[in-house]
Amino acid sequence: DFLHALEEVKPAFGVNEEELTTCIQNGIINYSPHIKSILDEGSLYTEQVRKSEHTPLVSVLLHGPAGAGKTALAAKIGLASGFPFIKLISPESMVGYSEAAKVATISKIFEDAYKSPLNVVVVDNIERLVDWVPIGPRFSNSVLQTLMVLMRKQPPKGRRLLILATTTERSVLQQMDILDTFDAQIGVPNVAKPQELGVILEAAEIFGSETKTDAGRKRVQQILSTVQEQTRTTEIGVGIKRILVGVETAKQDQSMEDRFVELMSRAINDRMV
Amino acid sequence: DFLHALEEVKPAFGVNEEELTTCIQNGIINYSPHIKSILDEGSLYTEQVRKSEHTPLVSVLLHGPAGAGKTALAAKIGLASGFPFIKLISPESMVGYSEAAKVATISKIFEDAYKSPLNVVVVDNIERLVDWVPIGPRFSNSVLQTLMVLMRKQPPKGRRLLILATTTERSVLQQMDILDTFDAQIGVPNVAKPQELGVILEAAEIFGSETKTDAGRKRVQQILSTVQEQTRTTEIGVGIKRILVGVETAKQDQSMEDRFVELMSRAINDRMV
Amino acid sequence: DFLHALEEVKPAFGVNEEELTTCIQNGIINYSPHIKSILDEGSLYTEQVRKSEHTPLVSVLLHGPAGAGKTALAAKIGLASGFPFIKLISPESMVGYSEAAKVATISKIFEDAYKSPLNVVVVDNIERLVDWVPIGPRFSNSVLQTLMVLMRKQPPKGRRLLILATTTERSVLQQMDILDTFDAQIGVPNVAKPQELGVILEAAEIFGSETKTDAGRKRVQQILSTVQEQTRTTEIGVGIKRILVGVETAKQDQSMEDRFVELMSRAINDRMV
Amino acid sequence: DFLHALEEVKPAFGVNEEELTTCIQNGIINYSPHIKSILDEGSLYTEQVRKSEHTPLVSVLLHGPAGAGKTALAAKIGLASGFPFIKLISPESMVGYSEAAKVATISKIFEDAYKSPLNVVVVDNIERLVDWVPIGPRFSNSVLQTLMVLMRKQPPKGRRLLILATTTERSVLQQMDILDTFDAQIGVPNVAKPQELGVILEAAEIFGSETKTDAGRKRVQQILSTVQEQTRTTEIGVGIKRILVGVETAKQDQSMEDRFVELMSRAINDRMV
Amino acid sequence: DFLHALEEVKPAFGVNEEELTTCIQNGIINYSPHIKSILDEGSLYTEQVRKSEHTPLVSVLLHGPAGAGKTALAAKIGLASGFPFIKLISPESMVGYSEAAKVATISKIFEDAYKSPLNVVVVDNIERLVDWVPIGPRFSNSVLQTLMVLMRKQPPKGRRLLILATTTERSVLQQMDILDTFDAQIGVPNVAKPQELGVILEAAEIFGSETKTDAGRKRVQQILSTVQEQTRTTEIGVGIKRILVGVETAKQDQSMEDRFVELMSRAINDRMV
Amino acid sequence: DFLHALEEVKPAFGVNEEELTTCIQNGIINYSPHIKSILDEGSLYTEQVRKSEHTPLVSVLLHGPAGAGKTALAAKIGLASGFPFIKLISPESMVGYSEAAKVATISKIFEDAYKSPLNVVVVDNIERLVDWVPIGPRFSNSVLQTLMVLMRKQPPKGRRLLILATTTERSVLQQMDILDTFDAQIGVPNVAKPQELGVILEAAEIFGSETKTDAGRKRVQQILSTVQEQTRTTEIGVGIKRILVGVETAKQDQSMEDRFVELMSRAINDRMV
Ligand SMILES: Nc1ncnc2c1ncn2[C@@H]1O[C@H](COP(=O)(O)OP(=O)(O)OP(=O)(O)O)[C@@H](O)[C@H]1O
Ligand SMILES: Nc1ncnc2c1ncn2[C@@H]1O[C@H](COP(=O)(O)OP(=O)(O)OP(=O)(O)O)[C@@H](O)[C@H]1O
Ligand SMILES: Nc1ncnc2c1ncn2[C@@H]1O[C@H](COP(=O)(O)OP(=O)(O)OP(=O)(O)O)[C@@H](O)[C@H]1O
Ligand SMILES: Nc1ncnc2c1ncn2[C@@H]1O[C@H](COP(=O)(O)OP(=O)(O)OP(=O)(O)O)[C@@H](O)[C@H]1O
Ligand SMILES: Nc1ncnc2c1ncn2[C@@H]1O[C@H](COP(=O)(O)OP(=O)(O)OP(=O)(O)O)[C@@H](O)[C@H]1O
Ligand SMILES: Nc1ncnc2c1ncn2[C@@H]1O[C@H](COP(=O)(O)OP(=O)(O)OP(=O)(O)O)[C@@H](O)[C@H]1O
Ligand SMILES: [Mg+2]
Ligand SMILES: [Mg+2]
Ligand SMILES: [Mg+2]
Ligand SMILES: [Mg+2]
Ligand SMILES: [Mg+2]
Ligand SMILES: [Mg+2]
Repeated sequence: DFLHALEEVKPAFGVNEEELTTCIQNGIINYSPHIKSILDEGSLYTEQVRKSEHTPLVSVLLHGPAGAGKTALAAKIGLASGFPFIKLISPESMVGYSEAAKVATISKIFEDAYKSPLNVVVVDNIERLVDWVPIGPRFSNSVLQTLMVLMRKQPPKGRRLLILATTTERSVLQQMDILDTFDAQIGVPNVAKPQELGVILEAAEIFGSETKTDAGRKRVQQILSTVQEQTRTTEIGVGIKRILVGVETAKQDQSMEDRFVELMSRAINDRMV
Repeated sequence: DFLHALEEVKPAFGVNEEELTTCIQNGIINYSPHIKSILDEGSLYTEQVRKSEHTPLVSVLLHGPAGAGKTALAAKIGLASGFPFIKLISPESMVGYSEAAKVATISKIFEDAYKSPLNVVVVDNIERLVDWVPIGPRFSNSVLQTLMVLMRKQPPKGRRLLILATTTERSVLQQMDILDTFDAQIGVPNVAKPQELGVILEAAEIFGSETKTDAGRKRVQQILSTVQEQTRTTEIGVGIKRILVGVETAKQDQSMEDRFVELMSRAINDRMV
Repeated sequence: DFLHALEEVKPAFGVNEEELTTCIQNGIINYSPHIKSILDEGSLYTEQVRKSEHTPLVSVLLHGPAGAGKTALAAKIGLASGFPFIKLISPESMVGYSEAAKVATISKIFEDAYKSPLNVVVVDNIERLVDWVPIGPRFSNSVLQTLMVLMRKQPPKGRRLLILATTTERSVLQQMDILDTFDAQIGVPNVAKPQELGVILEAAEIFGSETKTDAGRKRVQQILSTVQEQTRTTEIGVGIKRILVGVETAKQDQSMEDRFVELMSRAINDRMV
Repeated sequence: DFLHALEEVKPAFGVNEEELTTCIQNGIINYSPHIKSILDEGSLYTEQVRKSEHTPLVSVLLHGPAGAGKTALAAKIGLASGFPFIKLISPESMVGYSEAAKVATISKIFEDAYKSPLNVVVVDNIERLVDWVPIGPRFSNSVLQTLMVLMRKQPPKGRRLLILATTTERSVLQQMDILDTFDAQIGVPNVAKPQELGVILEAAEIFGSETKTDAGRKRVQQILSTVQEQTRTTEIGVGIKRILVGVETAKQDQSMEDRFVELMSRAINDRMV
Repeated sequence: DFLHALEEVKPAFGVNEEELTTCIQNGIINYSPHIKSILDEGSLYTEQVRKSEHTPLVSVLLHGPAGAGKTALAAKIGLASGFPFIKLISPESMVGYSEAAKVATISKIFEDAYKSPLNVVVVDNIERLVDWVPIGPRFSNSVLQTLMVLMRKQPPKGRRLLILATTTERSVLQQMDILDTFDAQIGVPNVAKPQELGVILEAAEIFGSETKTDAGRKRVQQILSTVQEQTRTTEIGVGIKRILVGVETAKQDQSMEDRFVELMSRAINDRMV
Repeated sequence: DFLHALEEVKPAFGVNEEELTTCIQNGIINYSPHIKSILDEGSLYTEQVRKSEHTPLVSVLLHGPAGAGKTALAAKIGLASGFPFIKLISPESMVGYSEAAKVATISKIFEDAYKSPLNVVVVDNIERLVDWVPIGPRFSNSVLQTLMVLMRKQPPKGRRLLILATTTERSVLQQMDILDTFDAQIGVPNVAKPQELGVILEAAEIFGSETKTDAGRKRVQQILSTVQEQTRTTEIGVGIKRILVGVETAKQDQSMEDRFVELMSRAINDRMV
């Protein structure tokens, strides 16, 4: 009937702002030039979707190690587009769903995205969405195939869609032959150098208000050099997420510096396994 | 009853023109003699179906690398036949279908094709239709068997059928013993030579209206030689689809040439992996 | 009740003449002495079923490469028996059936065959009936077991049954331990020698009415020697089915001889892979 | 209620005489001393079940190559016992049953066997009952487990049970750890020596009424020596079943001896593969 | 409601005496000191459950070769405890059950066991309960997990539980990581020495009432030495179950000694495979 | 409606005190400095959840050999937090549940935990929760994925959650890529040194009230040195759980010391396998 038809066509305005904002819980710390360059490339694809006649669909994959900041950066690019329809497809929102229910939910979000003129869909943590586990290996092929087809499906005339996907398991996606599906890929690296770690410790105010005083900066430098001594390396190789959690754990301890150095060293050594 | 019987027999006129036209979104650029030869061979099989008494069914497989233009060329051949019934079987139109629903949908399209005197069915992206994934490997055997049997099944007396199938995974189809099913196979190659790339850049009007002036042609030549310098090869080996997307991305950037060269070089290097 | 009982016992007269005749679409060309010898052996088993007291069931497997003519020959032997009940079990007639539906359909046909005194069942393309695919490998074990048991099951007193099965995958059937099920096996070879190919080209009237004139025969000889030159072999090794399709494709082309030679050479070379 | 209870307890008299007699379609030809020794050992176990207080359940496995006569011999032993309850569990009687239906049918037959004082159950062709296929391998574990448990389950007080099972796949049963289930195993060999073959040809009246004349015996000897010449061996190694079918096929041919020799030689050579 | 609540709490008195007694059909023959030591260790665990405050749950695994007497000994220990609740979980009592029905039945028995103060549960033949088959291998993981959890689950306050499990497949249980579940393990060996065999033959009255006369003992010794001669070993290595069946089979034969020696030698030789 | 809404939001106060207390059946014996250090690290994470703004979710994994005391220590840390909502997710509470029922139960407990301001969830024995068995290997991927996602899912604003998980199979969890899910990992070791064993024997009052007299201590020392002599090692390498059970078994025996030494030596030797 008429009303139903109307509903079917009316754009599904709906920026999941809150949901996406939660993904950037601790803000975006500008600890290295990589961060800016990633955000810039993101805005290039945003413009391509907005303006090009020939490419109404652009899909981009952000990949990198666990906790490197992939989800936060994808959310940032999505929110920065200002597109009227922005939706997040995440494993957390589908806990306990059957394969069929997942397929239906994902299809529904894409269908909604075909009703607005300009749309962003963030497909977070593809390996988790498809229930990937390396033992077996096992995964949901029906969810995988749904994603593979939907991320290539041209939107109807007059609709445009930017897809931002994230994954920790790029090589798994490659084995799944899903990489060809993406128009572009962006790597998100770990925190690499002591200096970058320093920027983060300051921004996270590890010593509270004291941090940005000269004394605070000196204590930060002290931490950096102790870490370097204990690990005998200047390669950090740890994700920003784990660093920020370590700062908070350390804050609970009386010997804050010792605890942070210990946690950091453990993290750096784990990396080599 | 009578009405039902009628409906069952009446030809299902139905050219999916729109759907097939969407597959040729960016037209067919005549960038190499291969293109004409593929279209010519296609029209030979079209004539065989139209005229031969002994071969009411002819099935042809277009195979080649991702983005080489297989779907566009199959659509072109199908549309060029002028047959009254033309249908597209594609993964995009069956997102989220169960195996049984896929089997039913595919069978229905073939059944419809047996009602018209002259018919074309385009079976796009076989590996995706059968939910192929190399890990495992896994695929839907029921969809595969349905396709294998239907693509060999003789139409009833007086009905003729041209099947045009596409695939990126010819070697997988070979392992599946499905290649014998086809009466003929046509390879669709990547863009191979810088000169071919040049033809494409001009046709895609990379510099807008300026492209076809002398200045434009010079800039195009400049791009070709920079790409060659950076990649140290004159083998392009990239699909036309990716090239056309790259042109659009580059158009968003202020330093258009640099961006295109970078994207192109990345694509050429990826190829070697 | 009485009526039901009657129905259960009354012979299910039903020669699927039309269905079986379709299997011999292009007749049986007597291109080699093998053909006669296969038909002779077939009629021997037909007589054994008709006359022997001790062997009311005889099952025969026709095996050979794709397109060698297995189905056509099985149909020919079956039709030649003149038995009142002849049925074809083929994958084409069960497209999209569930495993259970296939098992039920197959069982029903055998049950029907137990009601007539003299019966033929053609079990066409066993590997396809059991949904065989080499990747995995996968197949329907329930259909396979049903066939294995039914093809050995003694008909009730006074009923006789000839089973004619075909397969392209004899070695697969061997791995499935199903070969012991058959009382006899008959190999159906490819077209082997240029001379045999010549007989076929004449019978298929490649040059229309001109073919059987002296000029026509000369053109045929010309084709044979060109093929031999291009492939550098006198071993054809191609099934009659593919040859007959090639003839029809060539007929659409202006340079008929060139096209046929090209298709034939391609087929001969494929064979070596 | 009372009637139902009665029914549950009343012995299920029911000799499947007809069914079992069909298994011995061509009688038992005494072609070698093995045959008597197998029947003797069978009657020993029959007596043990009839008389011993301590072993109310005895299970025996007859194993040997395809067509060696296992089913006929098991049926013979069963019928010879004269026990009031004799049932046959065979794949032919459960065509198209689901796993659950098979399990239920088998359980029901054993339950019935617990109601009579003296019972025989013939479990024919175990590998086929469990839907065994070497590719995979695959089989019905639920049917297998049901058999494994039922063939060891002690009948209730006062009931006795003889189980006669047959198989072509003893080594498979061994891998399935089911051999320990049997109290005894009896091997059934192929026809081994030309002399044994001679006895069979005479008994099967290969030359009709003439066979048992001197002329007939001479022709039989002639066959034996021709087979020996052609196969260059005195080891027959073929099952009696195949020999008897061969006799019947040969009878249809005008050159009966030639045909039989050819079929026999083929059978002997197959054996070596 | 009240009645229901009552029922739920009232102890489920129920010694399956009859069922367990059937497991010791041929009594416990004291043929070696091992037998006493096994029964003693069993009574130690019985006392621990009866008296210790800290270990309300004790689980013991009896393992050993097929027919060694595991089930009989477990039943003996259970019956000897005199605990008010004794239940047997055996594959024979769950023939044809679905996995879910097995899980439910097993859970129910344990639940019942939590209602009495002192309880024994005999879990007979774990590998058969979980439908274990080495080909694959396959087994019911849901039954296995249920057993693993229930055999570790602490009974509610004031309830105590002794679990006696048996298995022929200890190494399989080890691979399943289920051995850690048991507090103790007891090995049940085969009959090892001729002297032990002698004790058994006497106890089983192989020559009826004559057995225990001097003449009988002499005949027994004669059997032992003939077996030794024929097998050239003094290692018996056969389970008591098979020996007792052999005695009964031999009793049916006129040449009793010869038959027993033959069966025994066959059993001893089988062992070496 | 209103009432429903209320119920949905009202905090689910519910400390499973009893359930968790049962996990510490034999108290926490302070037999080594490790024990205190584990409890201290536990309280650090408790404080982080209580106080930090940035980390409302902290998840910790306690891993170590079977019977090392993981569950008891996790329960202790949880109870010590004094948080208003404490729940235990354990395999024992989900015996016989289907995968779907497990997923639903686990999801419900987490949902409840999002309603209280401060929450602890103990996820006991992850490998058993996911029905892990090394043969295959097999496990419930749906339960695993549910845990992986829920243990990372941020609680809603204003809610905080401490997750304490335990496992014997850390390397399996690593293969499952689930270790990254945890913010911290704590190893729980076996009892290592004779001196530690001595502390435990005293605390467990192996000789009743006599244990803590000089005579008792001497007998304990005697046990330690006998064990050392028999095993020729000073490495104990046995979990405290098994030691405490052994003490109880030994108490039932008249020669208590001998029995304990035997059980202990067996346990130490098992360890080396
Ligand atoms: N420059 C930055 N880039 C990304 N995240 C940052 C940055 N600076 C601070 N953050 C914070 O670091 C955290 C990054 O976590 P995020 O979940 O995005 O990582 P991830 O790579 O998606 O992790 P996972 O592999 O677990 O999915 C966020 O809380 C974010 O607010
Ligand atoms: N000569 C040409 N041949 C094919 N496509 C062309 C040609 N010239 C331009 N195109 C355009 O290039 C695109 C080719 O994309 P198409 O989807 O057909 O590639 P494909 O090989 O099917 O890709 P995929 O492997 O992803 O299925 C279309 O947009 C088409 O309009
Ligand atoms: N001598 C012949 N033997 C068999 N077929 C012949 C012969 N002469 C002509 N034909 C024709 O050749 C074709 C053989 O095709 P057919 O389907 O029987 O081959 P097939 O071996 O069953 O193929 P497939 O492997 O695809 O099942 C038929 O159209 C038949 O009419
Ligand atoms: N001595 C004999 N032993 C067994 N069968 C004999 C003997 N003499 C004649 N026969 C006949 O031989 C045939 C043996 O076939 P049967 O089905 O018993 O063999 P089988 O070993 O069970 O075959 P399969 O492996 O196919 O199950 C029967 O028809 C039987 O009447
Ligand atoms: N000392 C003994 N120990 C055990 N069983 C004995 C002993 N003496 C006599 N028996 C008898 O031997 C038989 C042992 O069979 P039982 O079924 O217990 O063996 P099992 O090891 O459980 O066999 P399976 O491996 O088949 O389960 C029983 O009938 C029992 O009465
Ligand atoms: N210092 C201690 N640490 C842990 N447990 C202790 C300690 N002292 C005594 N115990 C007791 O030891 C037992 C430890 O058993 P627990 O079930 O916690 O071990 P587990 O490692 O979880 O075993 P499993 O691997 O079987 O899950 C408990 O009964 C506990 O009361
Ligand atoms: Mg992320
Ligand atoms: Mg395509
Ligand atoms: Mg065929
Ligand atoms: Mg048989
Ligand atoms: Mg037992
Ligand atoms: Mg634990």
